[in-house]
Amino acid sequence: MKNEFDPIPTIRWVDGAVRILDQRRLPRVEIERDLRTPAELIRAIRSLAVRGAPALGIAGAFGVALAAAARSGDAAAFIPSIRDSSQRIADCRPTAVNLAWGVARALARLDGWAARGTGPELVELLRGVGEEMLAEDLDASRRMAEHGAPLLPAGKAVITHCNTGGLATGGLGTALAVVRAAHARQGIREVLVDETRPLLQGGRLTLWELGKAGIPARLICDGASGWAMRRLDVGCAVVGADRIAVNGDTANKIGTLNLALAARALGVPFYVVAPTSSFDSSLPTGEGISIEERDGGEVLRASGWLEKDGRRAFNPAFDVTPAAWINGWVTERGVLQPPFPGS
Amino acid sequence: MKNEFDPIPTIRWVDGAVRILDQRRLPRVEIERDLRTPAELIRAIRSLAVRGAPALGIAGAFGVALAAAARSGDAAAFIPSIRDSSQRIADCRPTAVNLAWGVARALARLDGWAARGTGPELVELLRGVGEEMLAEDLDASRRMAEHGAPLLPAGKAVITHCNTGGLATGGLGTALAVVRAAHARQGIREVLVDETRPLLQGGRLTLWELGKAGIPARLICDGASGWAMRRLDVGCAVVGADRIAVNGDTANKIGTLNLALAARALGVPFYVVAPTSSFDSSLPTGEGISIEERDGGEVLRASGWLEKDGRRAFNPAFDVTPAAWINGWVTERGVLQPPFPGS
Repeated sequence: MKNEFDPIPTIRWVDGAVRILDQRRLPRVEIERDLRTPAELIRAIRSLAVRGAPALGIAGAFGVALAAAARSGDAAAFIPSIRDSSQRIADCRPTAVNLAWGVARALARLDGWAARGTGPELVELLRGVGEEMLAEDLDASRRMAEHGAPLLPAGKAVITHCNTGGLATGGLGTALAVVRAAHARQGIREVLVDETRPLLQGGRLTLWELGKAGIPARLICDGASGWAMRRLDVGCAVVGADRIAVNGDTANKIGTLNLALAARALGVPFYVVAPTSSFDSSLPTGEGISIEERDGGEVLRASGWLEKDGRRAFNPAFDVTPAAWINGWVTERGVLQPPFPGS
Repeated sequence: MKNEFDPIPTIRWVDGAVRILDQRRLPRVEIERDLRTPAELIRAIRSLAVRGAPALGIAGAFGVALAAAARSGDAAAFIPSIRDSSQRIADCRPTAVNLAWGVARALARLDGWAARGTGPELVELLRGVGEEMLAEDLDASRRMAEHGAPLLPAGKAVITHCNTGGLATGGLGTALAVVRAAHARQGIREVLVDETRPLLQGGRLTLWELGKAGIPARLICDGASGWAMRRLDVGCAVVGADRIAVNGDTANKIGTLNLALAARALGVPFYVVAPTSSFDSSLPTGEGISIEERDGGEVLRASGWLEKDGRRAFNPAFDVTPAAWINGWVTERGVLQPPFPGS
């Protein structure tokens, strides 16, 4: 893990099982779990033992292979049963579009391959779809890292938000892959990690990943990023993205906008790192992005309130940072500027 | 408490005891405690059952009265014993300068008053010093509220940070007194309360106070304030201050700077509310303000880390907002602009 391009073992196929790093136990306990049936995979996905859009895409494809391994018989009876089982995997987290997409990518090959045989060789072929997605994801991460690393000034601190590392992806990530590459090459002084309330992905996952990679890191409260930029020598801020509009407006984890506003006001460059698959050519601007509002209890509980107390919170899961506050978009194809290709 | 100028019973003198609202139990349990001896008062202060600079000043003066009540005898033996006991109160939270100042204010009267008698009438006289400070504090809050309330646009939301209400003061507060007055007069739609990591004073105390005052409020994560300004109709942001330099640079709870930067970028006016006693005429700019760094565990624990894990945090208790990002300073003498009187 100390090499800049060693992936975190987020999700792999090992000996006929999907082996995942159980993220429910992080940051303090590192346990891998082998998922041998579609039902075990569904439980792991539902309970967030494995999470993150790219990782779930890979899980979906591997899930079809698990479904094939659990069945036997001739193709006529076999295929509907695999499709049924795979559909349950695709549906087990309805908002995770990558999961359904990974399932669909493997299912698209099923008919042709099953005609040639429904034994272990079919399981291997389907597994290969997951391996292909994993390899594509790692390749995209390495390319983003190549393009993004030169943007991080040597010897300075970098601020980041949420978890954009290997735990959310095939093992390397987006913004965090850039950070790892920059640390391995020109060297960065430290990473300042927004804890990322309310779900603390920065504090739980990013701080853990940076420790594994041997990169100096300090956790900060989300509200402290501006003061950190004033007091510490911060070279830039890097974040990931959930969805990017044609004009460059960028939806990402709640708190990204505040970090971007502080960075601009204090003269710190602010970069988004995301694969081109996150660019939505059907979306002219960020105005059209609808933002999921989550249960207020996620915020209220930390302050000691119970549901029956009847207090309220405003708890958007994401925010949209206008393109004007973003200095560059690092992708696997290079550092881009809007407008991006529209449909 | 529904009247704009009804104080919260943070600290009072009742039947020979200092009666406080035990802030360790908030927000879910409201319990008052009577402190009858200097030792009980010291325990309450040390354990943060009573806190906040103005409230501790009043506690200091009341503490000298408790010390006098615990002793008897002629003035020659009596006075050194009171001074000794009072000094222990003044020293029990070394960074709380108001506490020592309240003790000193009562002790300054001790010699003259003790010469006239050391019985219950002396206790009453000393208690009067605390009552005087309480009255002054409430009066300053009412004046700040008068001057500040017109700045809050009717029917819009207000964003605030940390706890600036009655719980930190004699019962009304600074920024929160302004909010209460504006709500009672022109009406505001709701208050958006930064939870104020890491110690969550907004989530625990401000949300509780606004509930007591019958003012609609929603808790937000500190990182969500910019998005709240984009999505909700926010009229202004109001915060308190710990220390204000001659040029207007303002030290306040960590997270204030990020809120100010977001407010300016998004066109939302940002006001500081503080009594003129918070203005430091010896400080030309905010550059000279040294900021306490607190234990990293305060930040790390929320993300599941233990001390033995060896992770680090950058945990400044305060930040300094440059005057350029502040639209006005609301004081008991009016809404002021820098430069403020220097020494």
